[in-house]
Amino acid sequence: MKAAILSITRDVHVVDITHEIGPQDVLEGALALEAAAPRFPAATIHVAVVDPGVGTARRGLAVAARDHLFVGPDNGLFTPFFADRRWRAYELTAAEFRGALVSPTFHGRDIFAPAAAHLARGLAPARLGPPVTDPVRLSWPEVRVGGGKVGGAVVHIDRFGNLVTSIHAEALAPLGSKVTVRVAGRTMPLVRTYGELERGNPGALVGSSNRLEIAVNAGSAARTLRARRGTPVVVSRSSPAAGRARRRS
Amino acid sequence: MKAAILSITRDVHVVDITHEIGPQDVLEGALALEAAAPRFPAATIHVAVVDPGVGTARRGLAVAARDHLFVGPDNGLFTPFFADRRWRAYELTAAEFRGALVSPTFHGRDIFAPAAAHLARGLAPARLGPPVTDPVRLSWPEVRVGGGKVGGAVVHIDRFGNLVTSIHAEALAPLGSKVTVRVAGRTMPLVRTYGELERGNPGALVGSSNRLEIAVNAGSAARTLRARRGTPVVVSRSSPAAGRARRRS
Amino acid sequence: MKAAILSITRDVHVVDITHEIGPQDVLEGALALEAAAPRFPAATIHVAVVDPGVGTARRGLAVAARDHLFVGPDNGLFTPFFADRRWRAYELTAAEFRGALVSPTFHGRDIFAPAAAHLARGLAPARLGPPVTDPVRLSWPEVRVGGGKVGGAVVHIDRFGNLVTSIHAEALAPLGSKVTVRVAGRTMPLVRTYGELERGNPGALVGSSNRLEIAVNAGSAARTLRARRGTPVVVSRSSPAAGRARRRS
Repeated sequence: MKAAILSITRDVHVVDITHEIGPQDVLEGALALEAAAPRFPAATIHVAVVDPGVGTARRGLAVAARDHLFVGPDNGLFTPFFADRRWRAYELTAAEFRGALVSPTFHGRDIFAPAAAHLARGLAPARLGPPVTDPVRLSWPEVRVGGGKVGGAVVHIDRFGNLVTSIHAEALAPLGSKVTVRVAGRTMPLVRTYGELERGNPGALVGSSNRLEIAVNAGSAARTLRARRGTPVVVSRSSPAAGRARRRS
Repeated sequence: MKAAILSITRDVHVVDITHEIGPQDVLEGALALEAAAPRFPAATIHVAVVDPGVGTARRGLAVAARDHLFVGPDNGLFTPFFADRRWRAYELTAAEFRGALVSPTFHGRDIFAPAAAHLARGLAPARLGPPVTDPVRLSWPEVRVGGGKVGGAVVHIDRFGNLVTSIHAEALAPLGSKVTVRVAGRTMPLVRTYGELERGNPGALVGSSNRLEIAVNAGSAARTLRARRGTPVVVSRSSPAAGRARRRS
Repeated sequence: MKAAILSITRDVHVVDITHEIGPQDVLEGALALEAAAPRFPAATIHVAVVDPGVGTARRGLAVAARDHLFVGPDNGLFTPFFADRRWRAYELTAAEFRGALVSPTFHGRDIFAPAAAHLARGLAPARLGPPVTDPVRLSWPEVRVGGGKVGGAVVHIDRFGNLVTSIHAEALAPLGSKVTVRVAGRTMPLVRTYGELERGNPGALVGSSNRLEIAVNAGSAARTLRARRGTPVVVSRSSPAAGRARRRS
């Protein structure tokens, strides 16, 4: 893919975000992209290839949203960016912006990377093909706010067994700093860093992706809590009464 | 190695092709280079270090072929490029284009990377040392064509257990689109993508390296077929009779 | 981290040295940095993040030494560079050179990478914060020289089981070329390359990091010799008498 890009333009920085998305895990890819993209300068072009449908009729897309451009398969990878009301998308059909040969198994190299390189040279996204108004969207994990609580769910389990949730830091702000987090029947504190947790104990913290995560110091939260993708997570204001009740039991 | 390059010239894009060649597997390195090099722009300099003989008397080479330059050990890594009748090679002997100190265990950093960086600055390859007319060549897997058949062999097993063969897409073209592939006593269809195969069933397809590959959907073709490097592979025009015969048994 | 850098300056080459330092192994990180840094051009900025104390009160540093700049946590990572008598260090306190938000778990992205990018744009290190005169230093493995011997210790075991020692090539020079090496009760030769060792036999050689290493051909020196970090290593001039004695036993 880098060769395909550099064959079209050398005036680029090509940066790998990750090669560690689980095979065909489109949701994990979308979460990684959501976390990484805003760290890059405006007008960055993000090529994302988590593509279980390669070689089938699924479309290829260029998406303009949040002052960035995204190129990849139309399978939901770009779901978080459709929250920008001004998103536009185009189907990658223009043959002149593809590689000379298109392998049925490697669109990353033969379709997406060339499209991205042409965008980097200044091509308008609309030149790549017709507008798309109905891109595939993942059912994106919701957050419910109300009654002094924020509810969400585990959306991803990372390779350390940490539980990444659908709850962003912003959703927690109204609760104030004294909160408890409840997952899989266990109540745990919200801490700032892993180091504040006793060894083997679970806790919640806002991770580097700006989402609430559940971790076990020196252990796997997924295993300790028997949690999986979809497990509900509730954050509540701490009440002293509740605290006393726990101590008594 | 990148530090060595950037100490000599900063006006380069340094791209990693792969760090996953099996230890000391020169043939696998040569196949990876053959697949990757033509994707890069003309005049790219490819540094290849699969070098079991480092520290022995084996030569270092710069090779000019197919409008690219190659730098690395003289152990057969560059075999595919000697098919270009206009290839030229030079032994890396000129001390002024080496690092100040040459470790006996890391010629990649101390000899090959500096040579490549000087070439990137425009040095003529002939300045690196005397011409070499007898570079080491691997016994390169042959393809036999005739009688409506194309015969080859497994040349590499990738980390998914897929069998990469010596047969390029071009060799298959004269057979037309209705072919069957026979490997290790099993007959299988030629498909366009892995998705066309039933789970657990083997099939053949032209992979992203433009070579015929044998795969098992959601499995290891190497294990399923008990195939290994050298196992013969034969592609034949499908005959309806053969098809019927199989169905009857 | 690369996004953070490229958001501040695009006029840089960003090179990964390694992502394979053992978790929270500050000494291994310091050794890797010591080996790699001098290979880079003068004025390179090295960002090093082996940071078990992230989120605690440990300081962040910019260090100028040996014509390079180093940025990272004040936990001993930069110990080898304090051997340059002209080193200077500054605490990373200036808010204007940090990211807009500072995560308590990812200072690499939010503090160190931005500081490095500003240095790459030409910022004077002293602008990043007040001078630091008492940076954390690791107890750095010593080498003792005298009586025709050089003594040191194993400082690191790499992933192949090779023992990296505290003894640099320079310390060996006065002993001449006929030496023997003693580790964990075994005596072994000093060789130039792994290939000179018989299969399964241990030997010592100067590795690509310019330090004396103990290796077992096609095996793990750590396991064969039951050595660990801190195991003493002694290099002595070979005496013919000692050689005869060994042969008799």
